[in-house]
Amino acid sequence: MELKIRILNWTAGIPSAMLNQKTAKRTGLQTKDRISIKTFGKKTKEISATLDTIKGIIRENELGVSSELKKRLNLKKGQKVDVNFATPPKSLVFIKEKINGKRLSKKKIELIIEDIVNNSLSEPEIALFISGMFKGGMTMKEIINLTKAIYKSGSHLNLKSKNIAEKHSIGGVPGNRTTPIVISICATTGMIMPKTSSKAITSAAGTADTIAAVARVEFNMKEVKEILRKTNACIVWGGSPGILPADSKIIKVEKILKIDPKSQLIASIMSKKLSMGTKYILIDIPYGGGSKFDKKKALLLKKDFEYIGKYFHKKIKCVLTDGSQPIGCGIGPGPEMEDIIKVLDPEKQGPKDLENKSIFLAGELLELTGKAKKNKGKLMAEKILYSGKAFEKFKEIIKAQEGDLKNLKKPKFEKNMLAKRSRKIKSIENKKISSLARITGCPLDKSSGLYLWVKRGESVKKGQKLITIYANSKNRLNEAVKFFRDEKPIK
Amino acid sequence: MELKIRILNWTAGIPSAMLNQKTAKRTGLQTKDRISIKTFGKKTKEISATLDTIKGIIRENELGVSSELKKRLNLKKGQKVDVNFATPPKSLVFIKEKINGKRLSKKKIELIIEDIVNNSLSEPEIALFISGMFKGGMTMKEIINLTKAIYKSGSHLNLKSKNIAEKHSIGGVPGNRTTPIVISICATTGMIMPKTSSKAITSAAGTADTIAAVARVEFNMKEVKEILRKTNACIVWGGSPGILPADSKIIKVEKILKIDPKSQLIASIMSKKLSMGTKYILIDIPYGGGSKFDKKKALLLKKDFEYIGKYFHKKIKCVLTDGSQPIGCGIGPGPEMEDIIKVLDPEKQGPKDLENKSIFLAGELLELTGKAKKNKGKLMAEKILYSGKAFEKFKEIIKAQEGDLKNLKKPKFEKNMLAKRSRKIKSIENKKISSLARITGCPLDKSSGLYLWVKRGESVKKGQKLITIYANSKNRLNEAVKFFRDEKPIK
Repeated sequence: MELKIRILNWTAGIPSAMLNQKTAKRTGLQTKDRISIKTFGKKTKEISATLDTIKGIIRENELGVSSELKKRLNLKKGQKVDVNFATPPKSLVFIKEKINGKRLSKKKIELIIEDIVNNSLSEPEIALFISGMFKGGMTMKEIINLTKAIYKSGSHLNLKSKNIAEKHSIGGVPGNRTTPIVISICATTGMIMPKTSSKAITSAAGTADTIAAVARVEFNMKEVKEILRKTNACIVWGGSPGILPADSKIIKVEKILKIDPKSQLIASIMSKKLSMGTKYILIDIPYGGGSKFDKKKALLLKKDFEYIGKYFHKKIKCVLTDGSQPIGCGIGPGPEMEDIIKVLDPEKQGPKDLENKSIFLAGELLELTGKAKKNKGKLMAEKILYSGKAFEKFKEIIKAQEGDLKNLKKPKFEKNMLAKRSRKIKSIENKKISSLARITGCPLDKSSGLYLWVKRGESVKKGQKLITIYANSKNRLNEAVKFFRDEKPIK
Repeated sequence: MELKIRILNWTAGIPSAMLNQKTAKRTGLQTKDRISIKTFGKKTKEISATLDTIKGIIRENELGVSSELKKRLNLKKGQKVDVNFATPPKSLVFIKEKINGKRLSKKKIELIIEDIVNNSLSEPEIALFISGMFKGGMTMKEIINLTKAIYKSGSHLNLKSKNIAEKHSIGGVPGNRTTPIVISICATTGMIMPKTSSKAITSAAGTADTIAAVARVEFNMKEVKEILRKTNACIVWGGSPGILPADSKIIKVEKILKIDPKSQLIASIMSKKLSMGTKYILIDIPYGGGSKFDKKKALLLKKDFEYIGKYFHKKIKCVLTDGSQPIGCGIGPGPEMEDIIKVLDPEKQGPKDLENKSIFLAGELLELTGKAKKNKGKLMAEKILYSGKAFEKFKEIIKAQEGDLKNLKKPKFEKNMLAKRSRKIKSIENKKISSLARITGCPLDKSSGLYLWVKRGESVKKGQKLITIYANSKNRLNEAVKFFRDEKPIK
């Protein structure tokens, strides 16, 4: 079917096209149909796109195209194109093989990743791939090939230095914002630390959300290089366009499905380290309570990481840490940033558990990279932290990322939740704390969230503060108070 | 986060919202994020929606909403709403149980279907559900509960008559457009035949596409009732908005994934019959060759249908038919409509295999409904067909669906493919024939497609016509010729 191109000033994130509802009705095309658009002439180009329909704006027999499509097909206003239903990508067959429990060859995994990058596979198809990895698992060989394929499809930092290190946490524990502190401590030693962090979807904040409370986090590889040139460390969002597109797209669907198959978890982390050229990798695997893994599974994951690290000639160390309750006092981008600043600033006092864990992890990384001798890492980390050098480094990084700690906003409303009786704190549930923080507006509202006044095992007196709820609308504040009373995240 | 409503004249098919790219960047929201939109005030309403981002049109801190959203939340221009990431629907947990091989209770299946209908489950999540049904299968109890849930969530025809009958084909065989002929024959006896048909996604045409070559096929339940009042039969598209929304949405994702789990196949067919109040159901299960089932699986499916038919007190008969080569000569909406007219019109001669199969199926249905005595159905069907009454009934139906046989268009280009040597036809491959027809422009270009001049087992002489290719652009014609030469669908 021939249609005339109409260029729209519209970025849909994926190649998208729009059709007038009348044209759609007449031809039998529907919203969300996947179509193929083909140019005429000797050098025909073809691309798959998703369809939307609209009343007005687009005329009959016109095809409105998003800026992505215009660019990819080099389209001009009024140009004629040939439109039909898209044929399914070949790699869909391989995805079905995975669903049926088969092992995938290197070539097949590469083709799946290629089709994810060039948008031939849509989100439902990526969901099927994730489902296949989740149900049947992947062998170590498949995971290695997946890592390579994701790495190959993205952009690479290509620094000459071999002195590149990173600290990574598997996540699942509210608060626990050790990364900015560990990076700031270790970067003072001259280590190059191109840290890619994630954003929250179910939790109250990811490291990228927390940094976003004061600075920019979305950068392309060229910009990352420029930041590293200025200050040998960065904390950017790993999903930034162009870094590892296959990984970002898979993660996006994983987050819709709330499924994170181990194979993809490992491949995602490793491919990022490969693309940054990272040599030394410290991985924090919190376990227990409401975190992602129990101890047995955490140990298995550690073994897998050590195996794959060896395969790629990386120095990897995995540490298992207690993930059974939140770490730090602040929950949510802003409150967590407050904690970070308090720990880093020698003139302030931050949460002791967050400080201790950060020092421990920084010490481990200093030893792994040979910056500190065995058993001397912790001491060295403490010294750097208490001297204020780490704080200076952190401010440098924030500045290089076009930020300022002064950007940190205060919430409009807050309310203290008090203990009704004198009791001992039995448990603080990770998942309920995350849900509560999200009700306040996290992670979108950077200044919303929680402040935890107590830790497990502590005794509280009647009327003592348990938690402060921060919100920017009365509505959200009231809802959070209700959730706190109904669900009792602190027992 | 508070945003101001901007109403857009935009139908996205699903509840969608648009944000200015600057607002998106500032808040960390991305294209395709699922957000919750909540109204303020005493009676707050909340809904999930998918996000798009756009340069221009929408101002900063505005939220552009589609017509669906405006309607569902009763939104007004300038109204303030509270926006955040959507929390995942509860039923996602049950979908994961299915992925993990668990059986789902009636309540859980109902909640999944409910969330599909109200757009709480997105396409990737529906893909996960389909993957779960595909991999683990479903028990007959689960299938029955799925059928009931899909039925409950849709609209019902509610006719008083018990004399409602339908013929259904499992599909997978190109051509094979018996439905309009069978419906036209049987409807002359006064049977009420509210036929819902499907559109093609991988094949060249579904019955709904073929009817769409001359008439309208998208109708709501009220309109279906009106058509039936006029002419006691209709052939409408089963995916028409509002008929069975859950079924339509699942089918849409199935078609992206090219997966059609047996449980959903049965539930989809049965729920449609329940919603139409159909009492007598004839099911055609083609098997063998490139069709959907081999004989063993076809027999199992027959057993399942008979079981579920009994459960719902329906009179079901399943017939297994030969699906090893195309039926009829025309492939594609227009060419198939030509065949249908030739079979129905007593003054014309249609393809004998299509005529014979239609008479056979019509005979079976006449016997099943008691209109004909045992072994007399075929004769009765022949008599009706040859008398021209069936053709009159068909024209009546097309007219009631706002159509006219004169709407049938001729293709702009055609090319005959000739036999290179004198040989016997060994095979005609269903899948390659479908692919070839799609290359010509099917199912969007209603007049494109193929005409098959030969059947398996026939002898052809050098230079004799094998196939005629119909297309509406030279481009497509040339491509189809190339595909025919490379892939050899006829051996």
